[in-house]
Parts: sequence; C-alpha cells; structure tokens
Amino acid sequence: MADIGTLYIVSAPSGAGKTSLVAALVEKLPRLRISISHTTRDRRDGETDGVNYHFIKRESFVRLVEQGRFLEHAEVFGNLYGTSADWVSDTLRNGEDVILEIDWQGAAQVRRQMPEAVSIFILPPCLKTLEQRLRSRASDDDEVIRKRLAGAREEMSHYGEFDYLVVNDHFERALHELAAIVEARRLTTHRQAVRQAAVLADLLSDSETR
Amino acid sequence: MADIGTLYIVSAPSGAGKTSLVAALVEKLPRLRISISHTTRDRRDGETDGVNYHFIKRESFVRLVEQGRFLEHAEVFGNLYGTSADWVSDTLRNGEDVILEIDWQGAAQVRRQMPEAVSIFILPPCLKTLEQRLRSRASDDDEVIRKRLAGAREEMSHYGEFDYLVVNDHFERALHELAAIVEARRLTTHRQAVRQAAVLADLLSDSETR
Repeated sequence: MADIGTLYIVSAPSGAGKTSLVAALVEKLPRLRISISHTTRDRRDGETDGVNYHFIKRESFVRLVEQGRFLEHAEVFGNLYGTSADWVSDTLRNGEDVILEIDWQGAAQVRRQMPEAVSIFILPPCLKTLEQRLRSRASDDDEVIRKRLAGAREEMSHYGEFDYLVVNDHFERALHELAAIVEARRLTTHRQAVRQAAVLADLLSDSETR
Repeated sequence: MADIGTLYIVSAPSGAGKTSLVAALVEKLPRLRISISHTTRDRRDGETDGVNYHFIKRESFVRLVEQGRFLEHAEVFGNLYGTSADWVSDTLRNGEDVILEIDWQGAAQVRRQMPEAVSIFILPPCLKTLEQRLRSRASDDDEVIRKRLAGAREEMSHYGEFDYLVVNDHFERALHELAAIVEARRLTTHRQAVRQAAVLADLLSDSETR
C-alpha cells in the first residue's frame, strides 16, 4: 500500500499575501509541491516555461479541455488558465502533497472532481491593510483600486465554502498555521498506517515468536 | 454565537509517554484543559483531590452513573474511574478544548455519545523501547513485565479506531505533532468564523457606507 498525498486548494483575495505564504510553506515542509498552471497568455520577461507556468497555445489548451485533462480551468482577461489533472494525480500517488493556488470558482470545480481535497482560505487582517496592499501593487488610480477591492470582496464572500480559514495578520504566525494544517493531515491514521507501517509491524508482531 | 471547544481523546499503551506529552501540550497551548477523572480508589500520598482525581465514595459514583453523569466510566482492579459529562460540556461551551486521557474502551464509549470528538493514539517507536519503559516502571519480575506488555499490545491493536496516530520516537517532535493537530482544528472555518467574527465583519462590511 502506498502513501497517497493530500490535495490542498489555497484561495485568497488579491492582496492577502497568499503567494508569499505558499512559497514559504513549501520551503518549510518536505513532500509538498505547488502545481504549475498551464496558460495561453504570453510569457513575460523573467518568466520561465515550466517554472512560472506551462505556456501553451490556445488550440493545445482547448484540446486538453476537450480531453478532460484539466482539474479546473478558467478564462481571465481573455487568457486561459488550467490545472493538469495528470500531474496532480501522479504527484499525489507518489505520496507528495500538492497545493493549488486558485480562486473560489476553480476551488468549486476541483471539489466536484476531488471531494477529498482540503481547502484553505487566507484572509487579510482588515480592509484597510488590504486596500494599502492593493494600492501598492497597482496604479494610484482610485477607480482601479476600487475595482480591485470589489473583486477581493467578491472572492472573500466565498470563505464559507472552505475547510480552513487563516488570517494573515502576522506572516510567521499565518505560515505556522498553514504548516499545522498540512502536518495534522499527515498524522491521520489513514496516512500514518502507511508511513509508519514498519513501526506498527514491529509493535504488533507476535511476541511469542520473538 | 460562541466558540465551542473540541473534545480530544488521547489513548496509548502504558509506556508510550502519553502523560508527559499531554502535560507538555497543555503547557504549550492556551485554552486546552485536561479532564480530571472521578475515582473511587484511595488517595495516595502526594495526590490532591481535584488535581489528580476527584476522589469520591463508591455509592456516590454509582449514583452518578445511574444519573448518566459520566461520559465514560470503567472498573480497573476493583476501582471505578469516570469522566464527568457536565464538566466536559461546560468547558467546551466556554470555548476551551478538552483532553481525555482514557483507554480504547473509554474512547469507544465517548465516541458513541460525542461522535464529533477527535481521537489520537500515541505509539512508542518500537517494542524494545516499550519493554524497557515498562521494565523501568515495574518490578523486574518477568511475569509482571510480560503481562504489562500483553496489555500494551492489546491496547495498541485498537489504533485503527482513532483519527490520528502519533509515534513518540522523539519527545519534542511528538509534542509538535500533537500541537499541530489541535492548532489545525482551531483553524477550521466553523471555529474561525466565530473567533474571527470581527475580522470577517470588517472585511465583508458594505464598502459603500464607509
């Protein structure tokens, strides 16, 4: 019997600090990998194919959709983004945990296909902090900020659909909390029975024959 | 809406290090309390009523059983031991988590009454270590050791009935793992929606009225 990894869905409004937290989490814990999305958008300077995204042509993407090869996919500003079902299931079967960084709509698609997925929603500590973070990464145009804030609030309104809720008020604490969620799942009897098979065999061996 | 604590059942064979781990866990985490059992056995030197046990007369114990006031109870070597249902439910309602240190039979009784309880089984790293630990705390009489080992193995054979499995091969690591289980449960959306109610109210407030 092989150890099967857990699929984690991590969602958050833009500005909650999700990307930095998830990057730190995979640094902190072994056997945890971030899924790299396929996309049809153009590669930007500094981006590497296979690292930031798998960059593919729109016709290839559409074919993969037709073949049911995406766990979830979406169109954002005219570009297609998707999560490879094959890579995810191969990695999980290899005993590694996988993190998908997707929005609430992608999360809903994944839950339908893999109800055993564990979903985590990350929140900023308050609206003021969120606004500051959005402002610092966008132009100062109030209209742009207002739209981003509205998008963030729309995303946050779906927090109730997630299994866990982490508030990123302090980076190290939020990181500790994310790690606790992943570590606890690895301690479930279902997974430990595989990983600790040798320990269990020793402890429950027939003492009379020793 | 009030935060409702989680009830943890922690079981282990004698010699697995459960008592030390649980004591360290309540030192490490806030809002976590160990249930103090009621017992009919005599108080020993160094034991304090209400600290080590609630020492009560057998007739009082039997009356409490008849009134259904124990979450679980058992007779061990002619003495009765039980967990107060009232104290547990009051403490949980107060938003604190509760730990019951009981054996697999007590665990089964509690699960029937409170299926939402989370159960953790602690294992020693190997049979040799277990034997050494049992030997150091009992007489050197091989027959006594053999009986204790048989009892430990009977207890361990029930590990599959528990939600989580922690191997106490290294005290600090096992403590970290127990803490992760408790911390992760506190991050479930169900509990966080209560504890982070102010954050959520701020984030999801109607921005138009701000």
